[in-house]
Amino acid sequence: MNKAKALLLIADGVGDRPIKALGGKTPLEAAVKPNLDKLASESECGIMDPIAAGIRAGSDTSHLALLGYDPYKYYTGRGPFEAAGIGMDVRKGDIAFRCNFSTVDENMVITDRRAGRITSGTDQLAAAVNGMKIDGVEVIFKESVAHRGALILRAAGLSAAITDTDPHHEGFGVLTSEAIDPADAASAKTAKAINEFVHQSYKILKNHPVNKDRIAQGLNPANIILPRGGGIGPNIESFESEHGLKAACVAETGLINGVARYVGMDITVVPGATGGLDSNLMNMAKAIIEQLQTHDFILCNVKGADLGGHDNNPQAKIDTIMKLDEMVGYLMANVPAKTYIALTADHSTPCELLDHSGDPVPIVIWGDDVRVDKCERFDERSVTAGGLGRIRGIDVVNILTQLMNTQEKFGA
Amino acid sequence: MNKAKALLLIADGVGDRPIKALGGKTPLEAAVKPNLDKLASESECGIMDPIAAGIRAGSDTSHLALLGYDPYKYYTGRGPFEAAGIGMDVRKGDIAFRCNFSTVDENMVITDRRAGRITSGTDQLAAAVNGMKIDGVEVIFKESVAHRGALILRAAGLSAAITDTDPHHEGFGVLTSEAIDPADAASAKTAKAINEFVHQSYKILKNHPVNKDRIAQGLNPANIILPRGGGIGPNIESFESEHGLKAACVAETGLINGVARYVGMDITVVPGATGGLDSNLMNMAKAIIEQLQTHDFILCNVKGADLGGHDNNPQAKIDTIMKLDEMVGYLMANVPAKTYIALTADHSTPCELLDHSGDPVPIVIWGDDVRVDKCERFDERSVTAGGLGRIRGIDVVNILTQLMNTQEKFGA
Repeated sequence: MNKAKALLLIADGVGDRPIKALGGKTPLEAAVKPNLDKLASESECGIMDPIAAGIRAGSDTSHLALLGYDPYKYYTGRGPFEAAGIGMDVRKGDIAFRCNFSTVDENMVITDRRAGRITSGTDQLAAAVNGMKIDGVEVIFKESVAHRGALILRAAGLSAAITDTDPHHEGFGVLTSEAIDPADAASAKTAKAINEFVHQSYKILKNHPVNKDRIAQGLNPANIILPRGGGIGPNIESFESEHGLKAACVAETGLINGVARYVGMDITVVPGATGGLDSNLMNMAKAIIEQLQTHDFILCNVKGADLGGHDNNPQAKIDTIMKLDEMVGYLMANVPAKTYIALTADHSTPCELLDHSGDPVPIVIWGDDVRVDKCERFDERSVTAGGLGRIRGIDVVNILTQLMNTQEKFGA
Repeated sequence: MNKAKALLLIADGVGDRPIKALGGKTPLEAAVKPNLDKLASESECGIMDPIAAGIRAGSDTSHLALLGYDPYKYYTGRGPFEAAGIGMDVRKGDIAFRCNFSTVDENMVITDRRAGRITSGTDQLAAAVNGMKIDGVEVIFKESVAHRGALILRAAGLSAAITDTDPHHEGFGVLTSEAIDPADAASAKTAKAINEFVHQSYKILKNHPVNKDRIAQGLNPANIILPRGGGIGPNIESFESEHGLKAACVAETGLINGVARYVGMDITVVPGATGGLDSNLMNMAKAIIEQLQTHDFILCNVKGADLGGHDNNPQAKIDTIMKLDEMVGYLMANVPAKTYIALTADHSTPCELLDHSGDPVPIVIWGDDVRVDKCERFDERSVTAGGLGRIRGIDVVNILTQLMNTQEKFGA
């Protein structure tokens, strides 16, 4: 007998509100999407609050919930998730920060928080500061896109309860990080290390060849690194040890791969999966089918619809939905026997809001023996009549594992 | 004015999934059940997750939740609930275990974990070990069916954080129980008492007349008792002190009576209530009407449908549903004025799964002034359109007590 498998397919930000230009329809209601509607008509349907009713979820917090991890417990700040998102190995107890390469003058006053929006050479600058030790604290630094990077401080007895060195405005001097509770030794130790790191970054970077070149070209040098948003690496069990399921992630963005890496999922690199509107979703579909040969659980995130929302571009959203429709048609025809598919979103990104909202999102669950209901369309309003009613993101993995029959019974 | 009363009627395991042999219907959808449908059409309807969405509930954990007790707080393991289920008085702080009568050879190696599946004489063997004292720890032992029994250790300062003596496999020696945390005095004291109990059970039982007879007949002697699955008696308030309602239980199985006894309900013995498919449900209905004269709240559990699920016997499930239909017709006609009836299940037991699933179950609430909705049938899918939406088991008593108007207002 085949082992049951599951695919959790997230159409990032696909939920929306009625749009005047679409005659009061949402993009999901306006799009022609025969396969998504077929999926819904063969599914148990409902609406889902990624975190809780009315809560505006980020993609990171929502994906944590959708993978069964309470984000109020496990989301310890942007720092650790940004670091994981660019492939850094964030461990329990690490303190991780988002960072900017910035420009300071000789008085340590910030003249450009983004160092002329530097686009190249940050890998060399990162290499110059990475690996140092400060009073026994290990420093791990990696560049990200443009002027961004991430920093990990690793040692026993650190704490994220410290103030930022980044004043968040130009024309101000670099701040001295302090322990929020001066009596807390872990915070004091971390603040001291961060202050020393910032000081050292200036000392090392100000005369770095990359910056000498920039100055020669009339560009602002990336002569200091300013960390902010520190958070502690959470004590998190892997998805496999929680559920006994070997899991892989097929996603386009560092943020989602970062969450997946956090919970020990295998990461898949898909050619042409750009995270943009031009992304090759059929290549992602093929990667899913391939990963289902060796994994029990696949998380897939398709980014495009969210971009349409952030740009108030309903047509871009509709276009992504139609590409997703082709992808889902292929998946329904090609997943192994006994595979369950849950199709949903991580949050709504209403076009007219240009950002994530707290509106619930549609969810459909498809596969053997589900209690198929009367819903025939995959959109925000059609699924409200479905058998699932209104559930939460954190319920989704439990609903899938009970269908897969891999969940332990609680009690006798 | 009559005082309001309530009946919480649980059709054990009645929820199911679409079954091919029934044309894609569930047993509830396939059964002819005019009274259940009449009840639903006069009720507020919905679906319910006994514990939480997708969680596979046991009958014990589910009934705790349905009686308003969070099972994650009050379910301390199989031991205490099995002991209560066979009528033992489990008190706060007791450590209770499930036990097997087993057979060991003279080297204390287990040759038969079930002592030849002994069917008689265990009452005498139990009496021989019951009541001993070990270093001030009171030992209470009672036989259950076949080779099973339950043990309570009673003393101040005990703990269930110990390892088992039962190796769970034949051909292995009896293990020495140890404190999981060696520095914990309560665990160490309990482990010492359990080791001594096991040793004493062998000393007392090996030459017991029941075993001499068994050996003479070529049967494996029940010459040792092996406890496992220890749990501490929870600190639980009675249902009456929580809600001010005098409560009785009309049930067929020790497990349900055990949960009811735990929360201080009166237990009712009903002639012909066998817990099997042949059970006399009309006698249970009459017992409910009788208990409603002297009690405010009745919990009733009808077991039959669950057996049909565990045996993949949809027809047995349908037969039980039709007997339940007759029972509910009688109840609707005979309950005192101002009685609310909540009809639901403790979990789904889909026939094709042969075990409990995490699918939600239908629930209908009937009585004066409820917001009757448009649902006209009592089954898994019809009620999803109902006014209750999707609720949890732990909500049910609160919904009933607010209808009964016996619940204190929270705030001003």
